[in-house]
Amino acid sequence: MTGSNDKPTILLQLDVDPHPSVFDSATAIDAGVDRLLTFGGVLIEQVRGLVHGALFTRGVSELNRTAVFVGGSSVVAAESLYNEAIATFFGPFRVSVMLDPNGANTTAAAAALAASEGMGGSIEGARAAVLAGTGPVGMRVARLLARLGADVALGSRDAGRAHAIAKNMAAQTGTTIGGFATHDPKSLEEGLRGASIVVAAGALGVPLLPLDIRKRIESLRVAIDLNAVPPAGIEGIDPGDKKTTRDGILAWGALGVGGMKMKIHKKAIQELFVSNDRTLDAEGILDIGRALVEKKV
Amino acid sequence: MTGSNDKPTILLQLDVDPHPSVFDSATAIDAGVDRLLTFGGVLIEQVRGLVHGALFTRGVSELNRTAVFVGGSSVVAAESLYNEAIATFFGPFRVSVMLDPNGANTTAAAAALAASEGMGGSIEGARAAVLAGTGPVGMRVARLLARLGADVALGSRDAGRAHAIAKNMAAQTGTTIGGFATHDPKSLEEGLRGASIVVAAGALGVPLLPLDIRKRIESLRVAIDLNAVPPAGIEGIDPGDKKTTRDGILAWGALGVGGMKMKIHKKAIQELFVSNDRTLDAEGILDIGRALVEKKV
Amino acid sequence: MTGSNDKPTILLQLDVDPHPSVFDSATAIDAGVDRLLTFGGVLIEQVRGLVHGALFTRGVSELNRTAVFVGGSSVVAAESLYNEAIATFFGPFRVSVMLDPNGANTTAAAAALAASEGMGGSIEGARAAVLAGTGPVGMRVARLLARLGADVALGSRDAGRAHAIAKNMAAQTGTTIGGFATHDPKSLEEGLRGASIVVAAGALGVPLLPLDIRKRIESLRVAIDLNAVPPAGIEGIDPGDKKTTRDGILAWGALGVGGMKMKIHKKAIQELFVSNDRTLDAEGILDIGRALVEKKV
Repeated sequence: MTGSNDKPTILLQLDVDPHPSVFDSATAIDAGVDRLLTFGGVLIEQVRGLVHGALFTRGVSELNRTAVFVGGSSVVAAESLYNEAIATFFGPFRVSVMLDPNGANTTAAAAALAASEGMGGSIEGARAAVLAGTGPVGMRVARLLARLGADVALGSRDAGRAHAIAKNMAAQTGTTIGGFATHDPKSLEEGLRGASIVVAAGALGVPLLPLDIRKRIESLRVAIDLNAVPPAGIEGIDPGDKKTTRDGILAWGALGVGGMKMKIHKKAIQELFVSNDRTLDAEGILDIGRALVEKKV
Repeated sequence: MTGSNDKPTILLQLDVDPHPSVFDSATAIDAGVDRLLTFGGVLIEQVRGLVHGALFTRGVSELNRTAVFVGGSSVVAAESLYNEAIATFFGPFRVSVMLDPNGANTTAAAAALAASEGMGGSIEGARAAVLAGTGPVGMRVARLLARLGADVALGSRDAGRAHAIAKNMAAQTGTTIGGFATHDPKSLEEGLRGASIVVAAGALGVPLLPLDIRKRIESLRVAIDLNAVPPAGIEGIDPGDKKTTRDGILAWGALGVGGMKMKIHKKAIQELFVSNDRTLDAEGILDIGRALVEKKV
Repeated sequence: MTGSNDKPTILLQLDVDPHPSVFDSATAIDAGVDRLLTFGGVLIEQVRGLVHGALFTRGVSELNRTAVFVGGSSVVAAESLYNEAIATFFGPFRVSVMLDPNGANTTAAAAALAASEGMGGSIEGARAAVLAGTGPVGMRVARLLARLGADVALGSRDAGRAHAIAKNMAAQTGTTIGGFATHDPKSLEEGLRGASIVVAAGALGVPLLPLDIRKRIESLRVAIDLNAVPPAGIEGIDPGDKKTTRDGILAWGALGVGGMKMKIHKKAIQELFVSNDRTLDAEGILDIGRALVEKKV
């Protein structure tokens, strides 16, 4: 269903944290949402009742004027609410839903697009390594880089975990995704060999790639560090870097990726109200980002 | 006090459930409420403080621009909040209040008006039976049918409970209300004898009236089933029925009643802001529905 | 930073009580706030995350369009949230913040301005006694009277507490503030000797100054009772008194102070959005009140 009418747009912001994210609320407001209904500490068993309230108030032809956003600091908990919201729909009774816990999806989409820009517009066939690639943001970055055609490898301190998640992700996405260990400098350097792109998606303030190792990866052309709090995840990259040349490669820091992240976030919110059938997880949000980039060019 | 001015309308939505009802919030928005302040998990001892905030912020001549809505899934708990809100008022310090937990009042009003429509515009003197008539919705349906002049009988699996509540309700409303047992087919059929109207107000998915018994009640002209989830409360009625002929009687299902329920709900919200002295429980909400029906005619 | 632009104004209302104050929400709405994000039961460890959401969503040049209000029934708990919010700021990343738990600051400012009005426009050098002066509202009244040049003494049932808090407050404000005991009539009368102004800032319904003692304080010219619930804090003053002559002195009751309190409250909210660097505790709020009074004159 696609349509538009005069009813105010309503966004249900379902958050797994006790207090719904101010960042997400303010972004929804700036994206033009008319009325925001926020809910904190949402449990999976409460989703059905909340979503039913969105489905059964307005007529079916007006369901594009109501939408659901799922967020919070736990990506895993938010994913379960997102899936439950979608499971609640039936027949024409559905509204658009977006998942962006902790900004994971919009950040991953912005990082993937930065990687593409750094590689001259395409990462098709390029080798990309994602450090902390088995974490919630890292997995999304990996999925999106693979979707853009890169040959992706996930790095994790735990080699077994890296391989298991990579295998699972490859099966789900139908692409080739590998894993490598990062627990010692030698393994890390081996895992990065041949990579054109490296993305660090670790916890705040945790260094993942020392400068000396980075300099020895001669294939490297693009480095993206999603950590905004010092010390850097990739040594030598500043949070404010935005296509900044660092030791011969193009670098992006967390703030440098942030501008595109905000544009994607707002545009994705707006897309929720174009039709009533969008389900925006990482891939759908990446597509919105790509359309933004292409429009600009 | 009646008046109007430029201050935005504010509705306090007090809900007994942890998360305030999305349905009620969205309906308030669509009814034109400017600003909605929602509160979940409201306890009776918190009502005074919340209502005082509504009474003492604006001038007395502007109190019609603030109102209170009480809802949630427990009718009994919501009733106690509603009564407490009203008890908080004194002198000119009052705002309008509406009670509609789980849609019980707006649904009961829409059901009573459907019964009237099915009987050609009046149920004065008609015999009406309410199945699950001692439940929170059933009691409201019974009150409203009696208010419209019907000779009402409450059906309950527990005969003693049916008689006790009927007696109490008759004393409160000054009308004749009887009770009957529904725990076995014979009692049920006896209780329905002579009824022109039957309304089923039971829990979702609980069958209350089998087809064979219904067919044997030759006096029956109107059947209304408020249960939207199969199996039907009244066998043979579809949730979408709306003045649909079924075996020679006019039938309404839950969705068939829903359109009028929404109209009544929105209009009742709007009435809260016409003056500052409305207290809308079942009867007041029925009157709003009647005015809507008459206006249409 | 001072500026203005088209983005809607957003106010974060952080409240220490389970349900955010309706009074504060309604006042913010009437002050013209576009979008209100309310949070109840806020703990100090949650402030950083909430404030970060306000700091990092919009551009630095737009930070005057977002602000924080801290309230709730516990002045002490709210003060800690207010201080934590300010501690979260760094560099240009700051928004304006206002503290007004239980209306303590706006009430104290209105009381101090009433005292000044009662004294003919200046309390410079006048002796002022604050009963229940060691309570959260009383301490603020004392601070503000001292700021306006009065020679202030705090009355408390506990003489030791009165002296200790007075000493501490004198050191902080660089003014002379004394203490006196109020636990028996003789001490109370001695403490009030020479006072031109008395303000009662005690709990609701607790009498603090009997009529016979008040009449014996021949220096008294102004009496302000902030208690709205009978019995009065200062015997013989009515809540509605507003520059009312009572036994030869000018009297204000809680409601009489209320009009100015509301004007100050709304104006202070509006000031939060003029620049992004206001931190409005009692003193800043008094200054806003003084500007309102001067403008009027």
